[in-house]
Amino acid sequence: MNRYAPVLRALGMIIMLFALTLLPPLILSYMVDDGAQAAYDEVFALTLLCGLYLWYRYRNVRREMNVRDGFLMVVLVWTVLPAFAALPFMLQLGISHTDAYFEAMSGLTTTGATVLSGLDTLPLSINLWRHQLVWVGGMGLIVLAIAILPLLGIGGRQMFKAETPGPMKDAKLTPRIASTAKGLWGVYVGVSVLCIVAYRLTGMSWFDAVCHGFSTMGLGGFSTHDASYGYFNSPAIEAVAIVFMLIAGMNFGTLFLAVSRRSARPYLHDPEARWFIGVCVFSVLLIAIFLRVQGVYPDMGLALRHAAFNVVSIATTTGYASVDFALWPMFAPLWMLFLCSFATSAGSTGGGIKMARALLLYKQVHREIVRAMHPNAVYSVRMGGQVAPQGILFAVLAFGFMYMVSIVSLTLLMVFTGLDVVTAFTAIVASVNNTGPGLGEVGPSTTFAVLEDFQTWVCIFAMLLGRLEIFTLLVVLTPAFWRR
Amino acid sequence: MNRYAPVLRALGMIIMLFALTLLPPLILSYMVDDGAQAAYDEVFALTLLCGLYLWYRYRNVRREMNVRDGFLMVVLVWTVLPAFAALPFMLQLGISHTDAYFEAMSGLTTTGATVLSGLDTLPLSINLWRHQLVWVGGMGLIVLAIAILPLLGIGGRQMFKAETPGPMKDAKLTPRIASTAKGLWGVYVGVSVLCIVAYRLTGMSWFDAVCHGFSTMGLGGFSTHDASYGYFNSPAIEAVAIVFMLIAGMNFGTLFLAVSRRSARPYLHDPEARWFIGVCVFSVLLIAIFLRVQGVYPDMGLALRHAAFNVVSIATTTGYASVDFALWPMFAPLWMLFLCSFATSAGSTGGGIKMARALLLYKQVHREIVRAMHPNAVYSVRMGGQVAPQGILFAVLAFGFMYMVSIVSLTLLMVFTGLDVVTAFTAIVASVNNTGPGLGEVGPSTTFAVLEDFQTWVCIFAMLLGRLEIFTLLVVLTPAFWRR
Ligand SMILES: [K+]
Ligand SMILES: [K+]
Repeated sequence: MNRYAPVLRALGMIIMLFALTLLPPLILSYMVDDGAQAAYDEVFALTLLCGLYLWYRYRNVRREMNVRDGFLMVVLVWTVLPAFAALPFMLQLGISHTDAYFEAMSGLTTTGATVLSGLDTLPLSINLWRHQLVWVGGMGLIVLAIAILPLLGIGGRQMFKAETPGPMKDAKLTPRIASTAKGLWGVYVGVSVLCIVAYRLTGMSWFDAVCHGFSTMGLGGFSTHDASYGYFNSPAIEAVAIVFMLIAGMNFGTLFLAVSRRSARPYLHDPEARWFIGVCVFSVLLIAIFLRVQGVYPDMGLALRHAAFNVVSIATTTGYASVDFALWPMFAPLWMLFLCSFATSAGSTGGGIKMARALLLYKQVHREIVRAMHPNAVYSVRMGGQVAPQGILFAVLAFGFMYMVSIVSLTLLMVFTGLDVVTAFTAIVASVNNTGPGLGEVGPSTTFAVLEDFQTWVCIFAMLLGRLEIFTLLVVLTPAFWRR
Repeated sequence: MNRYAPVLRALGMIIMLFALTLLPPLILSYMVDDGAQAAYDEVFALTLLCGLYLWYRYRNVRREMNVRDGFLMVVLVWTVLPAFAALPFMLQLGISHTDAYFEAMSGLTTTGATVLSGLDTLPLSINLWRHQLVWVGGMGLIVLAIAILPLLGIGGRQMFKAETPGPMKDAKLTPRIASTAKGLWGVYVGVSVLCIVAYRLTGMSWFDAVCHGFSTMGLGGFSTHDASYGYFNSPAIEAVAIVFMLIAGMNFGTLFLAVSRRSARPYLHDPEARWFIGVCVFSVLLIAIFLRVQGVYPDMGLALRHAAFNVVSIATTTGYASVDFALWPMFAPLWMLFLCSFATSAGSTGGGIKMARALLLYKQVHREIVRAMHPNAVYSVRMGGQVAPQGILFAVLAFGFMYMVSIVSLTLLMVFTGLDVVTAFTAIVASVNNTGPGLGEVGPSTTFAVLEDFQTWVCIFAMLLGRLEIFTLLVVLTPAFWRR
């Protein structure tokens, strides 16, 4: 029996489920007759059959998946699904397989960087497909972060336990993946509907509302317009976006508790949420004042409006832009990229190292300073009133280190291929943090289409690395993983 | 009694000793009548009197220094001595106190970044003073790294014990600072003499040989010529420089053992030395091939010559340049800056996080990957055959993290003041690693004089932070440190 049989069977089931997500764009395509019908027919059939074949071939496997299978499973899901998802882009838009895979990976990892321009004139169903990928990616992500990675011992669950105070621990977030997923997806779907309705009420068309609702909740950053939110130029729409980006940037487990108890208290007891909101508010004010002092905007109101939208967009790793913030004095966009590396919560749809790890890293440094002064003092790192176990501290420190090593080495690789430093560095930061737009040649007013194929693949790798919390991918790339 | 009395008394003694180092330039100035005599007379008298006053005032203190005093002591030595050292620059060259303090700090931290141009026409004694500062800084540094920081629990000693295999542990490197210092200084002086003679034999004037011998052994990078080693344009001189930079980039404790046993075996057993040499050889070849393929040099010989000198110069954090390597395709200088952040050994005169820490960080990441695959396996980090204690692993991980945080936050601060990203980032990297030249506006063909005063102070802080291994300075900057 194939030793990967349990993984392949599960993968087959997931591919079949994923095929179903092709139905909405397929139906839309037939409804509006945008010319993409044939593409969806073929891709739907192909995807369904591939999934069916895998499932059927290994349907009699009885062995349960072990931890090693779990790693392989996660990596396969996040590399195989984008291959299927890329097909409509290739067939309908005639772009290269590199660019199509990039676009699909960018969607499913909720990165939201695009190689496409002329978004306003794309077939409607292609735009729906792009945005829906983000939304589906966000769903996968929440389950990955809250239910699967913890079982694999990466970040999630243990970190969670140590960090989330009282209410979380005795909550009925059952550890079984299916039931956890059901609860979390419930609130995810519910908030998405609210977001779509809010967008519609503030002036978007239904189609734009659905698309942007999807990319807002997944913190993806795709838009149906080349000008992104600059197209709408509406403070009301921007306000709606800010609110829902902030919600999606916090733990969906906390949201689940808040909804089921009809109380905001879970947020008050979530240290990640407190720091996330604090960092966002501080940064919006900082950048607004900076822009006003530098004379970028004639009055404080305008500075505040553009700072609020664009800073929250980048800090939450969404990646919308209402103005070309790459034209702001360099400190502003750099600060925003700095934020996106740590601001969002674990268990949100955001990227980066997550606020929980950032707080643990800070506390660890503080402990070392105290220990230097008082070598014999006993001092442990606490989070939400609990002592963080040594194993978790090591894991978080190693994660923080590998995160930085990844950025440095991938940036060097991009520079090696001939890119300038700013483009290379920001493309990697924006990819690893699943944010989207960088600066330089890949700024908010341009696309990743300027990159050569090899550079595009480096960005694809970076998106995947960041999305799978680095170690999941590294483990599978280790030769030892493949030994019996 | 003043609670800082023991620190101030010791500081007074060190200031008096430091006053004596003003004698060589003073004597040279009288010998060659370069017009700087009056400056040295005044500064020598002032320095000696200040030291004498402090020592005399607290001479009767009997209390021994404790750990906290040790931190304060180290920080005071590395901030007060540059103030005295800056006076000849101010008095003789008429530069601002900011620039003069920068030049002195750059010398004593063996950074070797300069704000001066027209080096070839400076008074001889001023050039001697600059280079001698590097050499004296290197002496202070070796003692700091091998004898003092370990007592303070920062990196050094314990790390040392864990890393250095057999020969080191039973060596008679006695823990008492004075006798350790004597042995290490012995080899430092001896190798310096060899280096000076080698420079003279390969064609430098005696004056240039002494100055460059000083700045080579301290891995400082100051030169008496604006064109640095481009002035000599001599492969023989470059070869001498490469050999002695490599020696100075390795642990002087290992050198001490090798000399006292008349054997190269200690180097073979020093894991840091192996990796350091390996990384340097690999990088020289990599960059040489890169330069040849990119067509920068017409033949491989020339590419190899310039790659060897400039890569070793930056990797060892020396900072000499034989050509303007900032004009090479960007990957080359970035790779060199990357090397300088970790290649040199603990207990050398180099900067950066040190190879010992880099190896421990790598092993720690490897352990986390193994732990993810085999959650129940017991696996400890080993260095030179010994298990590294948890406390050291935590210290090293926190150090690696703070190192990166320092670079990111200081770069953001520099960008905030209006610098472009490349200049800001490389100025900070070159300062924190005590390397010297950056890229952009502070490249090898320019000086740090282009920076505004505030930016200069940020670089001064960065040099100090890197030189005092980050935590020494952080501890003293903590409010808790100053509470009784
Ligand atoms: K995004
Ligand atoms: K240097």
